[in-house]
Amino acid sequence: MPMEVVDGRLRAVIEGISPQVEEGRFAVKRIEGDRLEVEADIFVDGHDRLRAVVCYRPTGSATWQETPMAALFNDRWRGEFTLATVGRWEFTILAWVDAWRSWHHDLGRREGREDIALALRVGAAQVRSAALRAQGADAAWLAAAATELEREEGAIEERRRLALSDDLHAAMERWPDRSLATFAEHIYPVVVDRALARFGAWYEFFPRSTGEAGLHGTLDDAAQHLEYVAAMGFDVVYLPPIHPIGHTYRKGRNNSLEATPEDPGSPWAIGAEEGGHRAIHPQLGGIEAFRRFRRRAEELGLEVALDIAFQASPDHPYVKSHPEWFRHRPDGSIQYAENPPKKYQDIYPFHFESDAWRPLWQELLELFRFWIGEGVRVFRVDNPHTKPFPFWEWCIQRIKADHPETLFLAEAFSRPRVMQRLAKGGFTQSYTYFTWRNTKYELTEYLNELNHPPLRDYFRPNFWPNTPDILPEFLQYGGRPAFMARAALAATLVPSYGIYGPAYELIEHEPREAGGEEYLHSEKYELRHWPLDRPDSLRDYLARLNRIRRQNPALQQEWNLRFVPIDSEQLIAYTRTQGDNLILVVVNLDPYHTQSGWLSLPLGNLGLDPHHPYQVHDLLTEGRFLWHGERNFVQLDPERSPAHIFQLKRRIRSEREFDYFM
Amino acid sequence: MPMEVVDGRLRAVIEGISPQVEEGRFAVKRIEGDRLEVEADIFVDGHDRLRAVVCYRPTGSATWQETPMAALFNDRWRGEFTLATVGRWEFTILAWVDAWRSWHHDLGRREGREDIALALRVGAAQVRSAALRAQGADAAWLAAAATELEREEGAIEERRRLALSDDLHAAMERWPDRSLATFAEHIYPVVVDRALARFGAWYEFFPRSTGEAGLHGTLDDAAQHLEYVAAMGFDVVYLPPIHPIGHTYRKGRNNSLEATPEDPGSPWAIGAEEGGHRAIHPQLGGIEAFRRFRRRAEELGLEVALDIAFQASPDHPYVKSHPEWFRHRPDGSIQYAENPPKKYQDIYPFHFESDAWRPLWQELLELFRFWIGEGVRVFRVDNPHTKPFPFWEWCIQRIKADHPETLFLAEAFSRPRVMQRLAKGGFTQSYTYFTWRNTKYELTEYLNELNHPPLRDYFRPNFWPNTPDILPEFLQYGGRPAFMARAALAATLVPSYGIYGPAYELIEHEPREAGGEEYLHSEKYELRHWPLDRPDSLRDYLARLNRIRRQNPALQQEWNLRFVPIDSEQLIAYTRTQGDNLILVVVNLDPYHTQSGWLSLPLGNLGLDPHHPYQVHDLLTEGRFLWHGERNFVQLDPERSPAHIFQLKRRIRSEREFDYFM
Repeated sequence: MPMEVVDGRLRAVIEGISPQVEEGRFAVKRIEGDRLEVEADIFVDGHDRLRAVVCYRPTGSATWQETPMAALFNDRWRGEFTLATVGRWEFTILAWVDAWRSWHHDLGRREGREDIALALRVGAAQVRSAALRAQGADAAWLAAAATELEREEGAIEERRRLALSDDLHAAMERWPDRSLATFAEHIYPVVVDRALARFGAWYEFFPRSTGEAGLHGTLDDAAQHLEYVAAMGFDVVYLPPIHPIGHTYRKGRNNSLEATPEDPGSPWAIGAEEGGHRAIHPQLGGIEAFRRFRRRAEELGLEVALDIAFQASPDHPYVKSHPEWFRHRPDGSIQYAENPPKKYQDIYPFHFESDAWRPLWQELLELFRFWIGEGVRVFRVDNPHTKPFPFWEWCIQRIKADHPETLFLAEAFSRPRVMQRLAKGGFTQSYTYFTWRNTKYELTEYLNELNHPPLRDYFRPNFWPNTPDILPEFLQYGGRPAFMARAALAATLVPSYGIYGPAYELIEHEPREAGGEEYLHSEKYELRHWPLDRPDSLRDYLARLNRIRRQNPALQQEWNLRFVPIDSEQLIAYTRTQGDNLILVVVNLDPYHTQSGWLSLPLGNLGLDPHHPYQVHDLLTEGRFLWHGERNFVQLDPERSPAHIFQLKRRIRSEREFDYFM
Repeated sequence: MPMEVVDGRLRAVIEGISPQVEEGRFAVKRIEGDRLEVEADIFVDGHDRLRAVVCYRPTGSATWQETPMAALFNDRWRGEFTLATVGRWEFTILAWVDAWRSWHHDLGRREGREDIALALRVGAAQVRSAALRAQGADAAWLAAAATELEREEGAIEERRRLALSDDLHAAMERWPDRSLATFAEHIYPVVVDRALARFGAWYEFFPRSTGEAGLHGTLDDAAQHLEYVAAMGFDVVYLPPIHPIGHTYRKGRNNSLEATPEDPGSPWAIGAEEGGHRAIHPQLGGIEAFRRFRRRAEELGLEVALDIAFQASPDHPYVKSHPEWFRHRPDGSIQYAENPPKKYQDIYPFHFESDAWRPLWQELLELFRFWIGEGVRVFRVDNPHTKPFPFWEWCIQRIKADHPETLFLAEAFSRPRVMQRLAKGGFTQSYTYFTWRNTKYELTEYLNELNHPPLRDYFRPNFWPNTPDILPEFLQYGGRPAFMARAALAATLVPSYGIYGPAYELIEHEPREAGGEEYLHSEKYELRHWPLDRPDSLRDYLARLNRIRRQNPALQQEWNLRFVPIDSEQLIAYTRTQGDNLILVVVNLDPYHTQSGWLSLPLGNLGLDPHHPYQVHDLLTEGRFLWHGERNFVQLDPERSPAHIFQLKRRIRSEREFDYFM
């Protein structure tokens, strides 16, 4: 059907808007206080002059605010505004052919008294009509200017001077004729999160492993463990599910099918007679113990994240109260999770194609709300890619409408499109393939993908070198240097990272079976008692990494990563910069051998003077070096320290300081 | 506002669809008979199996046709269909979680009699419900199969064999349960043009210059000139405006402000007492002369293209009959075209911000319809970028709704976004920057941009080495070799090209002033009498180029251009291939000196055997060479022939033939 045109006089064209995800179908993500730089291609037929503004507001606000856009080059325009509050925002663009600017531009170039006189009459009409639009003092002032411009007698140059005066131009710019303005074709949403969505160090541990040796730990034991976590400088402490654990088909140690009466079961087999997703495992203590735990965490500057796993053990109260939320087999039994011939009889997935999908969605939403009511604002969502994408989009939007400070980390180790869609659908952060990216080529490719549009506008990576489910091969064989290198990479490649401890700092590296990634004696199926004071523990190293992160704004930013050429495939080097804070990281990717190479630092980009020496200060080892020029030598012995985290100083401040470092 | 969900059970996700322009906002362009390869990312939560189809139809058709999509890798799916007719088409994608496929996949891997028995009951229910959907013989057959599957007694392996049988699978695939299928978010339009939109050689000339020496030529004179054009092998003959020319402020020779009574004026100053855009200049003859011209062209296999310039001379009938279509100045005069201090008083632009924009649009539409009524189906549109973009989108859609075979060439030499928007808005083809791209780097960059998405899906280039407005510097100084090289490039880099003759074949190269691109003694302002038989004419060369284009399907295709490395900055080399038709072009970009270099042919990509010699046949000079391996030497003397257009033969067919070429 040929298009219908409402008003053919709307001539300005607005397209190629950034940032946006799929023409506004999904929101871009930013942080409270960020300046949003909006760009677009804006143009019109012919030679007329344009003006454009970005219109923006917190979603739901009745009125738009505006900020002017300026032309860059090749019809590209830019305007920016501050995302002042956490929550959902939206913007669009308004552009119009600006008769005043066209006229003003031409008038200065006109020649001949007759031509100028006629032009002044055209301009006078514009000023008169602006006077009618104007309010306050401008109204009378513009009316007077119009009268002056349209005077027939007198010196024409004087009138031209008035027409071209800054005062008149400013007043005319204040009262443009926007009757034929064009809006961009869509409204573009922005989700604005609090700072923790961008920058944070996460620490996962099993509270039940914090008891006295041999005993099931409580949340009060876990609260005592928090000081240890806080001392390492983490920001988020994240707990696997803390709910009652099913006993039907409970898994034993190392995921064996037969559990002994002593086996505590997997925390992900959620629900038993004592309750489901709102209840707390009796041996962890009741809700009061959880509240004490959360308060203690807050005292220590730690935020508590909970693991939300939408699945039920056969003993979950839902199984009786809401059988319609599960798939039933012809023999009346409930369909357990399976991947034939494998059976996971201890887990019932929810049946999202149930006719009762709406109450099911609502209940799952209420589970988040329950824990929000308990003060939790960070959720790590278990396997979100096995629940419908539309559910997450709906659920996260609902939650954030009331509690925009809530963060959701998607635990989806899946195919690229699946992980990306979850992020588009609203997850604040995402687990990533970092866990398996070990070589320089792999890391460079992956980080470049993450740091560029379209991905960077909606997919916030959180780098985990290990999880309770994943002990990667590199950590199984690389020893302590591998654990140090991977932590340094995770902590400095992106602003958010996390580890599963104390397995990490205690260099737990035995797999359940060769070729697999499961931990031997995994805490998922048994209690562990960790010797936290073991001398080879990486706790001090992690504390130093986190301190470096907190003290260097460059490591708290997104998208400022730049790889630096270094002539060894075993060494990776990159800068992160923010204002005067210049960080250069070099990591030896080979955990077995000392590696060395020559760096080529882009001095110009870093604002370093090629003709003067500059100081590099290794924040890990406190070593200081005086470098000169672009090419510099680096050598890293993995047994001593597989990484340099250099702070670069732009200028040696005095001769004295210069001498000091020589 | 949080999203509303209509049915949460629709789980399949469809995104990343190609080809498309801005999520379906604009149409992609293809040619009648093309296969459209539709791709998308399609996936679902969890491990269920999917099916997907492309739904397509000519726009306006009441029913969709379907073609299945197949999974490629990484959640990418592809399906294709034939664009069988000229006109507007549209497609979308339908995907669904296919319970049968999931069940079928799992059944083959199940172990244990009990598990299999239960699964067979689940499958039987699916088959029974498919029987209810089925029609014809499938209905009874599926019902019987369901009964068989659900039998409780008897050998279970026999029932499993039935369940996994090809016959049952095929029948179940024919009657899928699509009740929870998801449509893609948009419907994606496709404009399907006739073959001339892709492949054609255009020839522009001024009919008034075809008369006896010193006389104003008529369309009957021009009709006699057509044989000359046809003999050169062109497909389209395109005329500058043929309407009455205004006399007010008429321009004289070389664009002088003072015209003598003998000066014929610019054909673009359209309209006089004799009529406007529907009339024919009295000295060219009446409408009957035009009809004779068009018929003669058709007899010779030439299609006539008209130049449509939406502007009026001060003497155009519109000025009196529709003063509301022009902008009026305060003194009552009509605003002429200007770019202060320059004035173009012989041209009145239309006032598209007029309150009477709707009748104006309608009248301009009717002008196209008038000439369509006279058998014209190709329009070269003058300066479309000085008329509103929404007008073109509306106008071209209206015209093509009734006459989908109509082609529009946009004469916009403007900024990239402006030219691209005109193409998105519906123009079939576009003039390009080729006219000024001379170096290997410039040509390579530009062609790579044109040959890749997003541009290639909507922007069809037509390469012109010259136009009546543009005598590029390279042709001013490069002599006959420059004209030969630029014609060879235009004719072989893309499927559509054109020249303005006889200025081109007669190597007209004097500019009106140094540093400018206007022709001296431009035909825009005076009659010319061209010595067509001059011995240095390029008419035979152009005839040969056009014959090579017609005989080689590879030169008729889009997007098959591949640049070939050659170790000289002055030589450019590229292949064009289509099935067995392999073309290799090498052009010397230096019109002054012989240049030579070594080519590195990608033999594997071309299907050439690296261990056998292959014949290269220069279709321009009839030279034949026997090459061997990847690296081969090329040398081009611009005075003899600045280009090779090699046809490559994959295989020397016999020993005899081999000997022959040695």
